[in-house]
Amino acid sequence: MSGNETARPGHLRIATEEAWATREMLDLYRRALAQNTIDDPGFKSLWGFYLGSKSPRATFIIDRLQEMGEPRIHDMDRTGIDKQILMLTSPGVQVFDAGTAVSLAAASNDELAEHVRKYPTRYVGMAAVAPQNPKEAAKELERGVRKLGMKGAVINSHTMGEYLDDPKFWDIFAAAEALDVPIYIHPNSPPREMIQPFLKRGLDGAIYGFGVDTGMHLLAIMTSGAFDRFPKLQIVVGHCGEALPFWLFRLDYMHRATVNSKRYEFMKPTKKTLFDYMRENVYITNSGVAWAPAIQFCQQVVGMDRVMYAMDYPYQFQAEEVGEMERVDLSASDQKKFYQTNAEKVFGL
Amino acid sequence: MSGNETARPGHLRIATEEAWATREMLDLYRRALAQNTIDDPGFKSLWGFYLGSKSPRATFIIDRLQEMGEPRIHDMDRTGIDKQILMLTSPGVQVFDAGTAVSLAAASNDELAEHVRKYPTRYVGMAAVAPQNPKEAAKELERGVRKLGMKGAVINSHTMGEYLDDPKFWDIFAAAEALDVPIYIHPNSPPREMIQPFLKRGLDGAIYGFGVDTGMHLLAIMTSGAFDRFPKLQIVVGHCGEALPFWLFRLDYMHRATVNSKRYEFMKPTKKTLFDYMRENVYITNSGVAWAPAIQFCQQVVGMDRVMYAMDYPYQFQAEEVGEMERVDLSASDQKKFYQTNAEKVFGL
Repeated sequence: MSGNETARPGHLRIATEEAWATREMLDLYRRALAQNTIDDPGFKSLWGFYLGSKSPRATFIIDRLQEMGEPRIHDMDRTGIDKQILMLTSPGVQVFDAGTAVSLAAASNDELAEHVRKYPTRYVGMAAVAPQNPKEAAKELERGVRKLGMKGAVINSHTMGEYLDDPKFWDIFAAAEALDVPIYIHPNSPPREMIQPFLKRGLDGAIYGFGVDTGMHLLAIMTSGAFDRFPKLQIVVGHCGEALPFWLFRLDYMHRATVNSKRYEFMKPTKKTLFDYMRENVYITNSGVAWAPAIQFCQQVVGMDRVMYAMDYPYQFQAEEVGEMERVDLSASDQKKFYQTNAEKVFGL
Repeated sequence: MSGNETARPGHLRIATEEAWATREMLDLYRRALAQNTIDDPGFKSLWGFYLGSKSPRATFIIDRLQEMGEPRIHDMDRTGIDKQILMLTSPGVQVFDAGTAVSLAAASNDELAEHVRKYPTRYVGMAAVAPQNPKEAAKELERGVRKLGMKGAVINSHTMGEYLDDPKFWDIFAAAEALDVPIYIHPNSPPREMIQPFLKRGLDGAIYGFGVDTGMHLLAIMTSGAFDRFPKLQIVVGHCGEALPFWLFRLDYMHRATVNSKRYEFMKPTKKTLFDYMRENVYITNSGVAWAPAIQFCQQVVGMDRVMYAMDYPYQFQAEEVGEMERVDLSASDQKKFYQTNAEKVFGL
């Protein structure tokens, strides 16, 4: 962290993509790395670094991911963050066998609910679920929302190379729609079948591979017809929409061209355009992108009501980045949408 | 094509990423598909479609790629295009063995030079080169520029999974810098080691896979230190910079974080920031993105002097798209930069 920020604006600041980890999960990650039991090059690259590096970046992040008491609250206070929307850090439980993943998700949700009970005005929980078992994932989402007060689910992009465009996962979408809660698709490293060219160049992580994988994931959901089947479903993505807003004209043009030319037998027409889905079924946060030009582009393209603030604590704990959208020419009511009310609406706070 | 456009603006319209193909190359593609001799799933998906589909899109494109006479000029006239910057269509010669690729590149350049001689005020040629043999590619670029009047080289992203960030290709950069001509990195389908998740979903082509691969390519060049070694080198990329301008804040932040934490031993500090390289070594065209919001974002981020017009004929032959930036609030001199003078400058017309 650097800089200092104490002046309080006329709105709350809700940070919508904030990470935490259980000790149990990090221990399982450590053991998997030591015993080489998770055969996923992206996992090994990411967590081999964070759990193996002595760099200030890695050691700070490992410390703070597990810190759910006063030091985290203090970090929030000194950067002017009122609430954190908390998610089990990527890839969460999605690298384990289904049995382990299901029980680990439930245990982490119980633990997160405890933290939220301790700081009910500062923390909001998102349920971890195990897509490896879609029916159990849907049940755990329901339990998280109904019993634990959680406000949605987090899915860390692909699960062992599978994506939510596959209808086998759609029990999760059905549950989210029925419960009226969003699904946050958080990045993951690209899967084995995609990662090598990125990995060789050090581009597999947050610098680029994350965005490619998560952008493809959201695009695949849009072209799969999932939003026709679940028209009220809301997906949240970070990093200014993983660049899909910027690509939107081309995505939409080429989607129509591809469908019309029947290039892929399995690619069927969708009821609405990709512009429609982006504006009706997707919320965007600016995690990792504390940069007014990209944020304002998103506001212009998907609307002022669908773009919101995130810090990406502790991965991008930068005090001077917090106020980025308070320093630009934006009305007080639009600032409030960005920092507060859009999040209150989509997460039902 | 649809719509109609006849009013002439106060500038030339130079379309900077326009495709053509030799009959010989398409015949080699046909034969390779029939005999399954090119083991590249992206090539098979792309050219299996264009050469196999009876759709109006595919048949029109195959026809027009090979048409270098009056029908092409007529298409330009009726959409108000003054000049086309012509490139051998993707993946060009880059899927063949080195010997075939070298001779095919030379033959296609000779043929293109003939077409340019026939329509010297309407056509500008970019040299095809075979990165499979970097020394020959550098020589062919020099021959293309010095003997045939060409204005740079086109590289269709990866060559059998290899990218220009590898110093083994840097004879090509050295030649381009010495000749003061740009290299246009045109998209290609992702390579075998990346494509499967895209291919399964019909997202491997222009809709998304092209942009991912080409964006990674440019990012890899930037982080490789190539622009420190060749500080005057100019790379042109289409599709509004393959989204790198939109990602630029995150790329730059995570590049610094990654280098500082020494996550990858091979990722060394660069002399300048990624913002600097994007603004000093990269030109952007709007091929495939006839959409003022994205174009203006690029102009804002990389500068009015580095963004220019492209149609992507015949792949995106849309008359109503041509005037997109003549309909927005942009001064006549900035319009002229976009449609004419930036291209004149970088291609040395």
